[in-house]
Amino acid sequence: MIRFDHQREERIRLPESVFCQDKSVAMLNEIIAELVGGDTARVLFTRLDQEKFGALDPDLATHLDYHEPSRTALLGGTREERVPGKVAIITAGTSDLPVAWEAQRTLQYLGVTSTLVADVGVAGLWRLQERLDEINEHDVLIVIAGMDAALVSVVGGLTARPLIGVPTSTGYGVSTGGRTALESMLASCSPGVTVVNIDNGYGAACAAARILQGIQPE
Amino acid sequence: MIRFDHQREERIRLPESVFCQDKSVAMLNEIIAELVGGDTARVLFTRLDQEKFGALDPDLATHLDYHEPSRTALLGGTREERVPGKVAIITAGTSDLPVAWEAQRTLQYLGVTSTLVADVGVAGLWRLQERLDEINEHDVLIVIAGMDAALVSVVGGLTARPLIGVPTSTGYGVSTGGRTALESMLASCSPGVTVVNIDNGYGAACAAARILQGIQPE
Amino acid sequence: MIRFDHQREERIRLPESVFCQDKSVAMLNEIIAELVGGDTARVLFTRLDQEKFGALDPDLATHLDYHEPSRTALLGGTREERVPGKVAIITAGTSDLPVAWEAQRTLQYLGVTSTLVADVGVAGLWRLQERLDEINEHDVLIVIAGMDAALVSVVGGLTARPLIGVPTSTGYGVSTGGRTALESMLASCSPGVTVVNIDNGYGAACAAARILQGIQPE
Amino acid sequence: MIRFDHQREERIRLPESVFCQDKSVAMLNEIIAELVGGDTARVLFTRLDQEKFGALDPDLATHLDYHEPSRTALLGGTREERVPGKVAIITAGTSDLPVAWEAQRTLQYLGVTSTLVADVGVAGLWRLQERLDEINEHDVLIVIAGMDAALVSVVGGLTARPLIGVPTSTGYGVSTGGRTALESMLASCSPGVTVVNIDNGYGAACAAARILQGIQPE
Amino acid sequence: MIRFDHQREERIRLPESVFCQDKSVAMLNEIIAELVGGDTARVLFTRLDQEKFGALDPDLATHLDYHEPSRTALLGGTREERVPGKVAIITAGTSDLPVAWEAQRTLQYLGVTSTLVADVGVAGLWRLQERLDEINEHDVLIVIAGMDAALVSVVGGLTARPLIGVPTSTGYGVSTGGRTALESMLASCSPGVTVVNIDNGYGAACAAARILQGIQPE
Amino acid sequence: MIRFDHQREERIRLPESVFCQDKSVAMLNEIIAELVGGDTARVLFTRLDQEKFGALDPDLATHLDYHEPSRTALLGGTREERVPGKVAIITAGTSDLPVAWEAQRTLQYLGVTSTLVADVGVAGLWRLQERLDEINEHDVLIVIAGMDAALVSVVGGLTARPLIGVPTSTGYGVSTGGRTALESMLASCSPGVTVVNIDNGYGAACAAARILQGIQPE
Amino acid sequence: MIRFDHQREERIRLPESVFCQDKSVAMLNEIIAELVGGDTARVLFTRLDQEKFGALDPDLATHLDYHEPSRTALLGGTREERVPGKVAIITAGTSDLPVAWEAQRTLQYLGVTSTLVADVGVAGLWRLQERLDEINEHDVLIVIAGMDAALVSVVGGLTARPLIGVPTSTGYGVSTGGRTALESMLASCSPGVTVVNIDNGYGAACAAARILQGIQPE
Amino acid sequence: MIRFDHQREERIRLPESVFCQDKSVAMLNEIIAELVGGDTARVLFTRLDQEKFGALDPDLATHLDYHEPSRTALLGGTREERVPGKVAIITAGTSDLPVAWEAQRTLQYLGVTSTLVADVGVAGLWRLQERLDEINEHDVLIVIAGMDAALVSVVGGLTARPLIGVPTSTGYGVSTGGRTALESMLASCSPGVTVVNIDNGYGAACAAARILQGIQPE
Repeated sequence: MIRFDHQREERIRLPESVFCQDKSVAMLNEIIAELVGGDTARVLFTRLDQEKFGALDPDLATHLDYHEPSRTALLGGTREERVPGKVAIITAGTSDLPVAWEAQRTLQYLGVTSTLVADVGVAGLWRLQERLDEINEHDVLIVIAGMDAALVSVVGGLTARPLIGVPTSTGYGVSTGGRTALESMLASCSPGVTVVNIDNGYGAACAAARILQGIQPE
Repeated sequence: MIRFDHQREERIRLPESVFCQDKSVAMLNEIIAELVGGDTARVLFTRLDQEKFGALDPDLATHLDYHEPSRTALLGGTREERVPGKVAIITAGTSDLPVAWEAQRTLQYLGVTSTLVADVGVAGLWRLQERLDEINEHDVLIVIAGMDAALVSVVGGLTARPLIGVPTSTGYGVSTGGRTALESMLASCSPGVTVVNIDNGYGAACAAARILQGIQPE
Repeated sequence: MIRFDHQREERIRLPESVFCQDKSVAMLNEIIAELVGGDTARVLFTRLDQEKFGALDPDLATHLDYHEPSRTALLGGTREERVPGKVAIITAGTSDLPVAWEAQRTLQYLGVTSTLVADVGVAGLWRLQERLDEINEHDVLIVIAGMDAALVSVVGGLTARPLIGVPTSTGYGVSTGGRTALESMLASCSPGVTVVNIDNGYGAACAAARILQGIQPE
Repeated sequence: MIRFDHQREERIRLPESVFCQDKSVAMLNEIIAELVGGDTARVLFTRLDQEKFGALDPDLATHLDYHEPSRTALLGGTREERVPGKVAIITAGTSDLPVAWEAQRTLQYLGVTSTLVADVGVAGLWRLQERLDEINEHDVLIVIAGMDAALVSVVGGLTARPLIGVPTSTGYGVSTGGRTALESMLASCSPGVTVVNIDNGYGAACAAARILQGIQPE
Repeated sequence: MIRFDHQREERIRLPESVFCQDKSVAMLNEIIAELVGGDTARVLFTRLDQEKFGALDPDLATHLDYHEPSRTALLGGTREERVPGKVAIITAGTSDLPVAWEAQRTLQYLGVTSTLVADVGVAGLWRLQERLDEINEHDVLIVIAGMDAALVSVVGGLTARPLIGVPTSTGYGVSTGGRTALESMLASCSPGVTVVNIDNGYGAACAAARILQGIQPE
Repeated sequence: MIRFDHQREERIRLPESVFCQDKSVAMLNEIIAELVGGDTARVLFTRLDQEKFGALDPDLATHLDYHEPSRTALLGGTREERVPGKVAIITAGTSDLPVAWEAQRTLQYLGVTSTLVADVGVAGLWRLQERLDEINEHDVLIVIAGMDAALVSVVGGLTARPLIGVPTSTGYGVSTGGRTALESMLASCSPGVTVVNIDNGYGAACAAARILQGIQPE
Repeated sequence: MIRFDHQREERIRLPESVFCQDKSVAMLNEIIAELVGGDTARVLFTRLDQEKFGALDPDLATHLDYHEPSRTALLGGTREERVPGKVAIITAGTSDLPVAWEAQRTLQYLGVTSTLVADVGVAGLWRLQERLDEINEHDVLIVIAGMDAALVSVVGGLTARPLIGVPTSTGYGVSTGGRTALESMLASCSPGVTVVNIDNGYGAACAAARILQGIQPE
Repeated sequence: MIRFDHQREERIRLPESVFCQDKSVAMLNEIIAELVGGDTARVLFTRLDQEKFGALDPDLATHLDYHEPSRTALLGGTREERVPGKVAIITAGTSDLPVAWEAQRTLQYLGVTSTLVADVGVAGLWRLQERLDEINEHDVLIVIAGMDAALVSVVGGLTARPLIGVPTSTGYGVSTGGRTALESMLASCSPGVTVVNIDNGYGAACAAARILQGIQPE
């Protein structure tokens, strides 16, 4: 009964994906069975936590290339052709890493090269300044931060590269759920910053791929 | 007493701009006077409505190239070198036009070519489908929509190009202020869509410029 | 001590229902016992999950016709007379299915025929266009979508049928809880769309029944 | 440059409309000029207040059939064929009347007969009970209420007819903007109630027309 | 280290109470030990669920008169003198009962007589009308309702008695957490309705006691 | 066309009132004309500012007893019989006075005696303590405060009298619109405090009247 | 009738102030008359805009030392004794200046020395770095910023001084009203940052005075 | 891969800290291992609950000085030099104690002396008044309160000391999550009160340390 958008990859150069958080194990088994028996070349599963992955039908799970830290799984294998250019994934703190890994894994799956630049939050500015030249060697920047998300404005004021902000839901009190980080990024005082949904490492990776695939890097 | 970020254009290839909405006429006169007497090559004034522009000191106002529909003014002239590539500015309805004009004027000022594709909201899908090929000939897409902002998801599902959504504050009831459009774009079911602040045509143009300046179009 | 609205079906042609989510097992046992011993012909139980159903007094539970995927149970049997006309239940994604099943099961209980048209989200428009003629053969449309809920506006612009939107609480970040989908539907750019509460498949089915029962289909 | 959805009436049996609140007088003049010179048979203008109407180019304004209390104007004349069935427009208080008039005027324009049942708020229940039989003779009910919007639930519990709630932005404090009325209607304890955006008399009329046009009244 | 407000009962004729939800079992044990060893005559424990009560030190728990359905416990016994007058506790639905029981138990503890009038929600108005005379024989009314809380306005329009509304957190979607019920009550179209915090049966009982203790019933 | 609830005073001992803020001058003229020509004995007009009052038809306005500071007007004269007992209206700051005057004027109209105790905000506690004995001689207390509304909790902890809180929309930033004051009052740490809508001096007066009319003061 | 807190200065070393925004000219005239005729030594008027100041009774206005840019006025003169230590007032952008001036004027009135460090927003980090040594020579820092308020975190990570953040209501879209700036400051990733209400330059100055008055600078 | 801000203590006199709530046990083990093997002298772990602490690698956990009630752990030992001056930590109710303990433990770790003044909420004002002299002997006050947070305003009006408010997430209904307490503190009617994030005892302690370290107490 499930209808995949088989033509998606041809149309927009991004393949189908399955968001697993809201789906029961029974639904996921049905989806994987249909995919395994069908002809959709590649599908990415996101927000598939260890517990849910472990509960899948083992015969079906064996078709998935699962990566626990990023809660992602690939079915059908990574794209072979490499997209030219490379992406820097920059995080403010250690709590932002799971989102960074989701972005990194999605890029890998899409054939895009990326570098992770972790723990460069603005409370200790020297950490960012130390790595600025390295960051500027990348074609697209994904900046992942929670709480006040101040890192986005600082990076945006130091580089001319396209910059995609990913707010994270880390923290407590006014930070709970990531609203403050989201709105702080949208209100960034640095010009030309764009933003995706809270914790959406997958979406940021797709946005970076749209840039690199649609336009040839220098 | 005002301190401009004179080095901004060198650093991030986007020049200084002045957001006029929150500033009094006295402040704006002081800013323009300082700029006219100083050496900052180019500054863009945004959200400068007709009434406020008309109230400026005429001797200072004469240095501005004012454009009423977009509420923008240029000081120091448009960038001469052209940025390669071109941008499509797509709007859902007529009420979105002022934001589209702000984006268009900013791009012009930055030396970027753009096309305006107006009134292609999804309530009458044929309008969008009729112009899809034309849209796909552009390197970067800016999609401007208020209310439910459904246009972003539909365009995002039909093209592989980088896509920057600009929610607008048009409408009433739940649409008031543009929150619904903003969140609808952030929650878009099409992968790889990025978003800027409500009514931020200027920011979307800067984001498009970051893409075209940092990466050479095909 | 519980007082049922026994006259409801006569008065508004929709029978009593019991929302189980906020009620303890003890309360539910008491309610079912009173119903079994009383004379209210038919009652629908909604949001009765597997765990809670399993914890009911077995002697009482045996009077319920339970359907796990929709979390509904019928007591007193489905209405025998058929309501003329039919309803299409249209969903954007797989995660919307539990709400669709609640609507479908409620309609069945009310004697209304329905068809489920699943997985036609606008990120892959062809899926909807392929089934548009089939959809238009139905008298009332229930459109179920989460995230940006863009499907409602697209369907609303392609058909003249009465259309009831059901926002769902699927997703994360700004989608959490379904507010964005709700407000996006209320702000729909297609005219004449109506909306019910988030995840309220039951309410949408009742609204469709009000239309079909009050007015004879063509 | 404006693109009307000329095919809308054929496609969904509801003609184009223009929401005037967010549009400048210059934009409206351009729209009317294009319509007068073109071939779109009928267009409805909503939220056109007296001041803005008075500021239109008189040569263009003369083509509009303006109705001040409802802030609507018709261009191209009312539909000639009558839609079978009739609609009751029920309001809680006097402050809800402008929204009721917008609904009434829209229905008239669409060829639908309607009756206004005003001032039957639940603080004085006898007013509603006195007119209940009259209300039940209508095929579709539009219930317009602000503040706590309790009228929707009471009416919904007394009639089997399709019921469309319109929350209004009347009141102060927690009532400001109409959110409380909107959410109260969505949370209605009466089954099968549907809702449109705050103050959206136009949308409720279109929803009623979808029901009466798609389905023949008894 | 805990400091009780021993003088509270003398000062405001309402004794100390302990809200247990945010307190650990260790904290509660310490509080009860101090009370048992001290001289504060009476203390009411609220939001003490079965699980937490069961985890208390049995030697201490034995001093409490625990009532599971209302999640309350009394230490020091009920007030002996009876407060003149009586209170009606009116609920819309079965899910509102735990809050009603908290109010009832608090009143009992304060020496106030009360009657529970359950399940008279406005979706079936006859249930309320049937009991209106009985309700009017009470001096103070506590009306407990969730979802749209329409019951408050209907009761408020039918009686001259002081009326205290208690919104409940029952329901889902826009009803989640009880905000809609709270704001609906505050926006009630019936004059002279007052409101307490969501689910605050305890507070409503105290407010009723303030009325009956401060003023002699007719 | 307007329908007054003529029986309201008999039913709930509170007469009809007209909230003028959302009504046009034309509507108000129509309402007054109908009242003057009819038989409803008494009606209170609230939120009738000086400008709107001045714009009324002078022949109609002459029937109103207008009081500018409270923005109220009486038609039909004050109730002759006096309600036993008296009310203290307590305000935190000078900005709360207009709401206090609305309460005071409404009480006067209802035949209830009241005293205004102004400017006793908790930043200078001595002011409240100085007048506590005087306050305690009243039967019902109305406490009016904006910003943090801390006055309600302090008064509630010092007196056994029934206490009705009225949050006001004074202040800026987080105080804007009065939400913080409202929620602070609802969350009051003093037991038995009740609350009405923001700025609702009229409602608080009606609630006080319900208490004094329904129950005889000591 | 107005009651000033004459003892405030003795008690907390901060004199009375009058927030003028919510008060009518008539109220302000009454307040000033009472003060001029009484014995309260010093009072600060805040949010007194030019228009309202101009409308005051000239005989009363003459007692005020008015300062238009900060919208403040002093009555009774500045404190003569100087408080030891000095405060740096740091702003992100030109739009934050009115709030900075309110802080500066309040400090002057309280006898505290301050320096204004304007236009050092993080989009151009060099501006802040250039002045960091100068900033560190001050005892207390007030950081004023709107939009994303990232400046607070950056300053907080570079200095050991006490830091008070003042969010401003500059900007548009998600920045409207200053909520984003407020929550961003509260969520700051730099430890030990404190925050006052949006646009509350007066409050930040008082907080700085509390520090300098209560504790002797090095 | 983790990068600590080793220079933080030198730069801002506050050492690194690790917020444990959002971090997995695996991440925490990695962090501790790196710290133990490295040269960062001191790190404070916050929000480390008993369950997570118990799940750490025992060899690593042994390096932590864990304190369960405050959910904090120290690595590297408390600062030896004492900061001059002392801090009073004042709480409204027993539920605020865990936040108070976090503040107390952080101060201890920073070498600052503090006193806990618990259970002095304003519903029983005498408790606060009894201890006011003792409170005023401290140099900095941290006031911790949930619900309406009225304690902050009352304390702020009775003392000249610097005052840092910490809203807590205790309570239910409108108190849930601590928003009401936060906004009530920000809107405090007492001048010069500053605020930190909800439940942020750690941040309040750091702010107090900034004051005492930057400025010598009298």
